[in-house]
Amino acid sequence: MISVVLLGAGNVATHLYKAFMASNAVTVIQWYNRTYSSISSFANDVDTIDQLESLKEADIYIMAVSDDSISKLSQELPFENRLVAHTSGSVSIHDLDKKNQRAVFYPLQTFSKDAELDFCDIPICIEVTEKANMPFMKDLAEALGCKPYKINTEQRQTLHLSAVFVNNFTNQLYRIAHEISDAKNINFDILKPLILETAKKVQHMSPYSAQTGPAKRNDKKTIKRHLKQIESDEHKAIYDLLTASIKKAHGISIRSMTKKNK
Amino acid sequence: MISVVLLGAGNVATHLYKAFMASNAVTVIQWYNRTYSSISSFANDVDTIDQLESLKEADIYIMAVSDDSISKLSQELPFENRLVAHTSGSVSIHDLDKKNQRAVFYPLQTFSKDAELDFCDIPICIEVTEKANMPFMKDLAEALGCKPYKINTEQRQTLHLSAVFVNNFTNQLYRIAHEISDAKNINFDILKPLILETAKKVQHMSPYSAQTGPAKRNDKKTIKRHLKQIESDEHKAIYDLLTASIKKAHGISIRSMTKKNK
Ligand SMILES: NC(=O)c1ccc[n+]([C@@H]2O[C@H](COP(=O)([O-])OP(=O)(O)OC[C@H]3O[C@@H](n4cnc5c(N)ncnc54)[C@H](OP(=O)(O)O)[C@@H]3O)[C@@H](O)[C@H]2O)c1
Ligand SMILES: NC(=O)c1ccc[n+]([C@@H]2O[C@H](COP(=O)([O-])OP(=O)(O)OC[C@H]3O[C@@H](n4cnc5c(N)ncnc54)[C@H](OP(=O)(O)O)[C@@H]3O)[C@@H](O)[C@H]2O)c1
Repeated sequence: MISVVLLGAGNVATHLYKAFMASNAVTVIQWYNRTYSSISSFANDVDTIDQLESLKEADIYIMAVSDDSISKLSQELPFENRLVAHTSGSVSIHDLDKKNQRAVFYPLQTFSKDAELDFCDIPICIEVTEKANMPFMKDLAEALGCKPYKINTEQRQTLHLSAVFVNNFTNQLYRIAHEISDAKNINFDILKPLILETAKKVQHMSPYSAQTGPAKRNDKKTIKRHLKQIESDEHKAIYDLLTASIKKAHGISIRSMTKKNK
Repeated sequence: MISVVLLGAGNVATHLYKAFMASNAVTVIQWYNRTYSSISSFANDVDTIDQLESLKEADIYIMAVSDDSISKLSQELPFENRLVAHTSGSVSIHDLDKKNQRAVFYPLQTFSKDAELDFCDIPICIEVTEKANMPFMKDLAEALGCKPYKINTEQRQTLHLSAVFVNNFTNQLYRIAHEISDAKNINFDILKPLILETAKKVQHMSPYSAQTGPAKRNDKKTIKRHLKQIESDEHKAIYDLLTASIKKAHGISIRSMTKKNK
């Protein structure tokens, strides 16, 4: 049985707590948060603390705390040569104080406290300073039903950047579509099956081959009409830029487009 | 039993054929395509033709043909005062020749011939020139397990534009993430669960409330590091524009960001 001490009580820590507790191979023996009220309701199920001095011995200390606080909190840990991991996609493994053995356990997924989420199949990006800890870290990921990937710092930071494109930016495109359809009294629900299917399609097909639409077809008439329909300059700029990006990816001359659309 | 004649044999027509054939309430009595070879393999199951003169009488003629060919093909139909529909998101209902009763049956979904797709729950945007045909059109959509929506031309064209944002542009963001991660030898598979979860999240939450990430948090340090990581000017421009768009949507001053990032 792997024993875990969890530090932090935000989106990630809360989901990790539930997932670890649901696993037969892992037990959370203690849960620390600097603000006690966030974890007090779990006091019957787990040892909850807000003082670092009370920390027990465990196989691993997982710090799921804000990026900016990782370095300082790791320095404040009142022990040495134990295994300490953070869960960040962007913080270097070397931000963890080197008095302990260091690791990264970065779940590549989007977590919100109130959104239900199946931990199964979440990719966990793993990095370690001591090679000998790699098998243990992989076991920990697999105990959650997750897929472990050995990922170095540069790759992890690239994944974090890629995640901004497929998560934050994609979500903003949903938001823009919401605005555009709202303005004409159209229920956003109508777009939801398309949103889901678009994401499903690239699960078994490359985004390159999944591309369709006026930009890919170089359908100048439709592009021109769309640009006329769009009221906001900001949305127009995004339409222009992403249309050009699709054309470029699919080898369509941008020059010819710009000319005809003027 | 509703009798349908299908015209066209592309992505939409092929999926419609299968879905109609699977329904108990609808039968396809004839399938026309100008290129016979695309439908010849169905000759045992349905009357397949490539001559408009051979068209039989049916409750509805569904023209799932390229946008540009809808107007001309509708003129060439050798009959009058029957119900004729197109399936386009952008073509006006008035592009159909007025010698017939006109309708639009626009499925708001992305179709590829080879991608399996469940017709169930696909929103069908319906428009008619004769009000009396509306209940019939709704029945037709429901016979497929689809949800019918009464949508006028302007709304349909707005939905078509919105679909470009949530489908074509989103897919291009996936493509960019694919490029960025490929360049560092990262398997694109790692990003797939996040892509799916991002789409799932907005099925029961508004995109506005689902937004997370450095732009939403106004995390200048991370944004600056990301911009440094991005190698392509095109990707940088997209990062900048969508970051600004998120900030604007969430009431964060763009000015303050630009200053600090320079
Ligand atoms: N959210 C995601 O989708 C996601 C996905 C993958 C990885 N991550 C990473 O996971 C980590 C946690 O993210 P999150 O979304 O769970 O954050 P969060 O919901 O904002 O929670 C942050 C936690 O850090 C604690 N904290 C903040 N400053 C602290 C300090 N100076 N000392 C001690 N504790 C401090 C907070 O304690 P209080 O309760 O006292 O404020 C809180 O428990 C971050 O490294 C993040 O990059 C997040
Ligand atoms: N694909 C989607 O995701 C989607 C979604 C919603 C709505 N739609 C709309 O559905 C319609 C069909 O789209 P699609 O993707 O199925 O198109 P597609 O796969 O390109 O197929 C086009 C069909 O139109 C026929 N055609 C083209 N020009 C013609 C002409 N001059 N005369 C007669 N037939 C002609 C083609 O015949 P040949 O086989 O002889 O070339 C082919 O059967 C369009 O209005 C489109 O806007 C598409």
